[in-house]
Amino acid sequence: MGENGRVEPEETVADIGEFALIDRVSAGVGSSRFVLIGPGDDAAHIATKDGTFVVSTDLLVDGRHFRRDWSTAQEIGRKAAACNLSDINAMGGVATALTVGLATPAGLPVSWAVDFSRGFEEECALVGAHLVGGDVTASDTLMLAVTAMGDAPRPVRRDGALPGDVVAVAGQLGLAGAGYAALSRGFRSPRLAVEAHRVPRPPYAAGPQAAGAGATAMTDVSDGLLADLGHIAVASGVAVDLRSEAFEVHEAVETVGGALGVDPLRFVLTGGDDYALVATFSSQSVLPDGWTRVGNVSEGSGVTVDGVVYDGEAGHEHFR
Amino acid sequence: MGENGRVEPEETVADIGEFALIDRVSAGVGSSRFVLIGPGDDAAHIATKDGTFVVSTDLLVDGRHFRRDWSTAQEIGRKAAACNLSDINAMGGVATALTVGLATPAGLPVSWAVDFSRGFEEECALVGAHLVGGDVTASDTLMLAVTAMGDAPRPVRRDGALPGDVVAVAGQLGLAGAGYAALSRGFRSPRLAVEAHRVPRPPYAAGPQAAGAGATAMTDVSDGLLADLGHIAVASGVAVDLRSEAFEVHEAVETVGGALGVDPLRFVLTGGDDYALVATFSSQSVLPDGWTRVGNVSEGSGVTVDGVVYDGEAGHEHFR
Repeated sequence: MGENGRVEPEETVADIGEFALIDRVSAGVGSSRFVLIGPGDDAAHIATKDGTFVVSTDLLVDGRHFRRDWSTAQEIGRKAAACNLSDINAMGGVATALTVGLATPAGLPVSWAVDFSRGFEEECALVGAHLVGGDVTASDTLMLAVTAMGDAPRPVRRDGALPGDVVAVAGQLGLAGAGYAALSRGFRSPRLAVEAHRVPRPPYAAGPQAAGAGATAMTDVSDGLLADLGHIAVASGVAVDLRSEAFEVHEAVETVGGALGVDPLRFVLTGGDDYALVATFSSQSVLPDGWTRVGNVSEGSGVTVDGVVYDGEAGHEHFR
Repeated sequence: MGENGRVEPEETVADIGEFALIDRVSAGVGSSRFVLIGPGDDAAHIATKDGTFVVSTDLLVDGRHFRRDWSTAQEIGRKAAACNLSDINAMGGVATALTVGLATPAGLPVSWAVDFSRGFEEECALVGAHLVGGDVTASDTLMLAVTAMGDAPRPVRRDGALPGDVVAVAGQLGLAGAGYAALSRGFRSPRLAVEAHRVPRPPYAAGPQAAGAGATAMTDVSDGLLADLGHIAVASGVAVDLRSEAFEVHEAVETVGGALGVDPLRFVLTGGDDYALVATFSSQSVLPDGWTRVGNVSEGSGVTVDGVVYDGEAGHEHFR
């Protein structure tokens, strides 16, 4: 009861948002000699009796993370695998085994589930991983819970960026976001953008290469470059500045930007679902093939573009 | 189109059921040198660069696997952990790390999520495991996706039972099922049965002990003893006969049976959610403490009680 005798409404997850909820829930979590990296990074790093592995988990909800009228079951299977393989990639690791929990309405066609698993295995095959187990249960809403596990000889965390480091990216940026924007307005083109939204192409070689080259921090771009780079800046206690002219903007992104009257750079900086990688490296490092330098790390906090805070939506919160 | 020009209705997951769906989806799954045990057992067994681990995943849906009006958030957290720790136990392993995916309506109280994670960690602490990561997303239905990983130096599969082996159980049987029956009819007692439904007490020491004693096959009792033992019988290609007088029936189970006019043995043989273990051992084995011999393995197929097919519902299918 509040001061005036009124019942105060109970705080809900919508009031505090996804990231604060994760912080609150993680606050009570203990640690053990088995937990080398716990909650808060792209994947956890776990000790076994003889070695270690990395693990990450993601939920995908029908109508929120995928749409069955926009994508085939096979495409959704590929994307469900890709976004989890990407988390292992972002640790500098290679996934070996994945599990899938399928919560499904009773009326789901069996063929949908079979096609989904075929697409899932196709994507896993790109890195040599396999579906190793799962669970099926009835639910009003179709939902997928994917967990990916793999090897990461030298896991790259989010909290190791240092002032003086350079910022680099690998993989496509903005293409999936532009595709989503096009699909949302009823377009089915440009093809490359729409396909990138349906089946992202994470740069699977780039994660282990960055780890090998001594990346100081790394994460994948799932919510948008500025938002995800913001996680590195906060975890590392540094400031990041990007140079807008360093980004190659894909022609299809230009096309969508032109058609919708949106600055194409907005898709590059804030578009999600491409599963590119962003990492920081010592300024002495030689960047591996496929990595492009796009900015610098300095003392301070926050992420800026050409020295100023970018004036656009900064990522994606599920409850906002 | 069918023979008469009618459109045949497409086969749905409800038409074929949970287990056939898992078989169909798993049929397309490949194997690799990393997958030592794949889909179809209590957990998968995965090779890492230097060692191995076991992993299992489960979905829990609000209103199906738990009810927020029957159980507190802390109790649901304990149970969500327990049913996954039990899968690792059933491989003869010890869990070390778990992830949780939380799909939640926006209106869920933050306190519910915090209490849930507290209960989850309490249960994990019983075996020295911890929550190491997760995901949160918005959903109309509250759903939990839990993945447990651990060490199993000598994983015990379902397919190793041999004619001549003995069948033994460890842990409570029937108590949670009796509690569910009582709650379903609006009772809140007997306390021990209702509590067993809310927070099961898997015999966490018994799994590794059985593996150490050379168990030939093992699984946990989540869907009912006859149903789960049926999985061992099918996987191993053997017949199993149980002796009804070998089971100690808990007093609370007798009480519920008497009150509801149900043979208490039905709860023991078909009640789910106790997360006991059932295993087979060579007849020369000395059963570890806590294990009770309840039957025999022979050539043939099927599970019988006192030589005949038990006349009762045999387990739990989510779509039936």
